[in-house]
Amino acid sequence: MHSDLPQFRINAVDRSLAPALQNRIDHKTKPVGALGRLEQLALQLGLIQRSLTPRLHRPHVLVCAGDHGAAKSGVSAYPQDVTWQMVENFLAGGAAINVLARQAGLALVVADAGVNHEFGPREGLLDAKVAAGTANYLEGAAMSAQQCASAMQRGAAVVRDLAAGGCNVVGLGEMGIGNTAAASLLTHCLTALPLNACIGRGTGLDDAGLARKRELLAAALARWEDRSEQPLQILARFGGFEIAMLTGAMLAAAEAGMVLLIDGFIVTSALLVAVRLHPAIRDYCVFAHRSEEAGHRGQLDDLKAEPLLDLGLRLGEGTGAALAYPLLQAACAILDEMASFESAGVSQRA
Amino acid sequence: MHSDLPQFRINAVDRSLAPALQNRIDHKTKPVGALGRLEQLALQLGLIQRSLTPRLHRPHVLVCAGDHGAAKSGVSAYPQDVTWQMVENFLAGGAAINVLARQAGLALVVADAGVNHEFGPREGLLDAKVAAGTANYLEGAAMSAQQCASAMQRGAAVVRDLAAGGCNVVGLGEMGIGNTAAASLLTHCLTALPLNACIGRGTGLDDAGLARKRELLAAALARWEDRSEQPLQILARFGGFEIAMLTGAMLAAAEAGMVLLIDGFIVTSALLVAVRLHPAIRDYCVFAHRSEEAGHRGQLDDLKAEPLLDLGLRLGEGTGAALAYPLLQAACAILDEMASFESAGVSQRA
Repeated sequence: MHSDLPQFRINAVDRSLAPALQNRIDHKTKPVGALGRLEQLALQLGLIQRSLTPRLHRPHVLVCAGDHGAAKSGVSAYPQDVTWQMVENFLAGGAAINVLARQAGLALVVADAGVNHEFGPREGLLDAKVAAGTANYLEGAAMSAQQCASAMQRGAAVVRDLAAGGCNVVGLGEMGIGNTAAASLLTHCLTALPLNACIGRGTGLDDAGLARKRELLAAALARWEDRSEQPLQILARFGGFEIAMLTGAMLAAAEAGMVLLIDGFIVTSALLVAVRLHPAIRDYCVFAHRSEEAGHRGQLDDLKAEPLLDLGLRLGEGTGAALAYPLLQAACAILDEMASFESAGVSQRA
Repeated sequence: MHSDLPQFRINAVDRSLAPALQNRIDHKTKPVGALGRLEQLALQLGLIQRSLTPRLHRPHVLVCAGDHGAAKSGVSAYPQDVTWQMVENFLAGGAAINVLARQAGLALVVADAGVNHEFGPREGLLDAKVAAGTANYLEGAAMSAQQCASAMQRGAAVVRDLAAGGCNVVGLGEMGIGNTAAASLLTHCLTALPLNACIGRGTGLDDAGLARKRELLAAALARWEDRSEQPLQILARFGGFEIAMLTGAMLAAAEAGMVLLIDGFIVTSALLVAVRLHPAIRDYCVFAHRSEEAGHRGQLDDLKAEPLLDLGLRLGEGTGAALAYPLLQAACAILDEMASFESAGVSQRA
């Protein structure tokens, strides 16, 4: 496996520009700190781009879709067919992420990372299929190490293409029936969070469904005698192709110095893998929102992340990332376009 | 006074369309409720516009500026001249609200409700000046009943012009050195909140400044033997021309069936007056954000309002309203553009 392991070189953000950026922010015509989180965001974007006037170019949302062998064991309220049906919905332009990405001016890339369906060559669908869904982690590893590396490579390749085309900000999204369950297992294995704190209702399980999901995921964990500490081994055991693809995409994006706009619970589980491999990736991440899905709060705490929005979303697809994107534009505009006390002739505080 | 009192006729929103709207939202291709607050917002916008596909037309932010006699007693960290200097900054396009309104596609209307400065006729400045600043409420009423009614009428007139031009959504903002102090007094008098719970640091008072502000505002209250229960009397005693103008603007906007996008602490104090006069106005209000200014949380609780954003803003000018506006656009787009399970051929939950 190791020869095929995707390699990334991710540098922590250079903070030498921080004082100049902070000075620029503090001299804008407003009380110091009065734009709150927007000021912190402006600072972060400036640091990522090493610029006093960061700019967002050719923004994209990458939505990776994949199926999960465990779906047939009943970890979701919806049938597995919904994954490919929703991919069709993405291609037809009718899903929430289509609407919200359009609204925010984000181009959408939909990738089949491993959906259990034969789409054939399709306009607007990026074929990154590793296999027709993962194996059932209740019976063995969800994917081989080779498959896992392959999914990561495909994610990295997509993002490198975007970067080559001038894109410097990417939102991450996903679709896959059963993938909150996979994300729960990853989160439990990669953090100090108890398993049940990582398990939520996903697309809307009732109490009985939630109890069953908890039992199934405890059983999935119990299959393994060792508790692995290796992020890629954990990813291969329990992850999905869409999650592995997102991990690779994120690592390549940070490597390219792009801004990563992190969506909800499943995307953050992919990020946890990436952070364990390359902690410096954290510098490039903007956390779009706090999901209603149980476990996301714990993930955010683990990452010391304060998301921009808290709207009770639990849809995935990158919808939170799309909704948060205008705040990134606003942060850039504040740095670039706002007058300073000096330039505007406004008195400073006594 | 009563002959000059501005009259408004505000109907509670007709909820008869609620079941059809909710049904439309629930059949979109997503789990029921998965878009959280965005779904509630879509429902509210649909009810306000009595439409299954509400649309936002010619959106505006109205920023009202005024000076406060009490500013010379030291209730703010900034000198009073900053009010007119910031109005100049608005006219030059360099303030935060210029940048954020542009970014969000909102047209900006800047009104001089009573700034202590002679601007003369100016391109882009709406002259609604009642007087060159209010009187000092530490010495008497801030304005006469006649002045208060006049400011409200001017606010109503601006909004009626906007409505006549096809605008159906208006964000409210303000500028006025000393106006958090006025808003604190209004909030205390109009709610059950203790005075000190309504007083914050405004543009950035230090501890000594905050203590002094508390003393001054307690003294302002103590001047009056009675505690008035009449909203307009309270507004005249302690308010600002910009606040009264906003109250009138809001009432006219609700009367016209417009969506009101409520900004922070000062704008919400103007709304409290409006709500006490016409409780039905509440139906038309979208609360943009939770301000860092102490007292805003109490106002929101009083109004049973859950704001969209919580970004630690404490700038005013309507900046929170501008930042929240894309979420209103997103809510409309979801209703209008998203596919239903039926139209997209997606299976519903088992």
